[in-house]
Amino acid sequence: MTDERLVKQISFLIESDKLKQIVRRTPLVDASRLENSAEHSWHMILTSLIAREYVPGPIDLLRVVEMIAVHDLVEIDAGDTFAYDAAANESKHARERAAADRLFGLLPPDQSAHVRALWEEFENQITIESRFATAIDRLQPLLQNAHSGGGSWATHAVTREQVFRRMAPIESTMPALWPFVVDIIDRFCAAGVIRT
Amino acid sequence: MTDERLVKQISFLIESDKLKQIVRRTPLVDASRLENSAEHSWHMILTSLIAREYVPGPIDLLRVVEMIAVHDLVEIDAGDTFAYDAAANESKHARERAAADRLFGLLPPDQSAHVRALWEEFENQITIESRFATAIDRLQPLLQNAHSGGGSWATHAVTREQVFRRMAPIESTMPALWPFVVDIIDRFCAAGVIRT
Repeated sequence: MTDERLVKQISFLIESDKLKQIVRRTPLVDASRLENSAEHSWHMILTSLIAREYVPGPIDLLRVVEMIAVHDLVEIDAGDTFAYDAAANESKHARERAAADRLFGLLPPDQSAHVRALWEEFENQITIESRFATAIDRLQPLLQNAHSGGGSWATHAVTREQVFRRMAPIESTMPALWPFVVDIIDRFCAAGVIRT
Repeated sequence: MTDERLVKQISFLIESDKLKQIVRRTPLVDASRLENSAEHSWHMILTSLIAREYVPGPIDLLRVVEMIAVHDLVEIDAGDTFAYDAAANESKHARERAAADRLFGLLPPDQSAHVRALWEEFENQITIESRFATAIDRLQPLLQNAHSGGGSWATHAVTREQVFRRMAPIESTMPALWPFVVDIIDRFCAAGVIRT
């Protein structure tokens, strides 16, 4: 095997395998174990395909899916930063930028630039595609927490205000889903799972 | 929450979480454990985005990704059927069809029909999108086996003829990759990992 381009593509794909070992805070629905970031990425893609109708107006769904497929790869070097950990989130940006340099740099230059652009787009939250991807990044764990008895809300003593701030991208991107999200949060507050 | 459509969509997405518990025969690259079908689906999607250029001619990449995202869901009821287990493969079709009826039937009728059509397209192997998705379903475990010292080839005493038959979709769909695949198989035969 001497094709330099193919060697680079395969080295990126093999390195990406490590995302299956990055453990998140959200449990599986049956609460048997915590979810990893590769499973989460697949479940987000499936969720985006099913929930696309809740985004008013046109959207490039392939770009959404591409963005979701690569958005967590930086965690291979930078780790999964828990959404409700303020201190870790301060250093997150620099850690993830260094990870993007290394990981996307494994690809041939044109594909490296393409994946880097997808990741930057996701980080910048300007386009509807990146905003929808982020809303899905909130909705998928919300559903999973809600159907596993509270999930990471319960184990990490998260407050109502924190959850509302975290879920805000759903309100702006899929407004029709917002009353449903508020209803879930209210129920888990009433049950004492989310702190009020 | 009283919106019947949303309730159905969520029940499908929550049920889909079970794909994270379907264990395959292919190990992770570091051989620390076996891969599950949700991780595999994500890694296939990533692989399809990177390897698209090896398919000559036009292809609807969004449909490829949609197909990959749903292609293994039937395993939630039918289990993962090992590619090299002839007996299990005989009953596979009926088991997976019943699973498709139940799982895709959780969705609202229009989305149920859409996902069913994607799955049937994948099963029928007529369109270039379904053939590419299948070639990726071969390429991803090939790379993983090759980079984990032999993976499921070694643990299940698979023969050269079986591997060649299994990998054939790569030859027809991504012909430029075929010499690379043959080279890998030859090397693992020479090393005594794949039986000759």
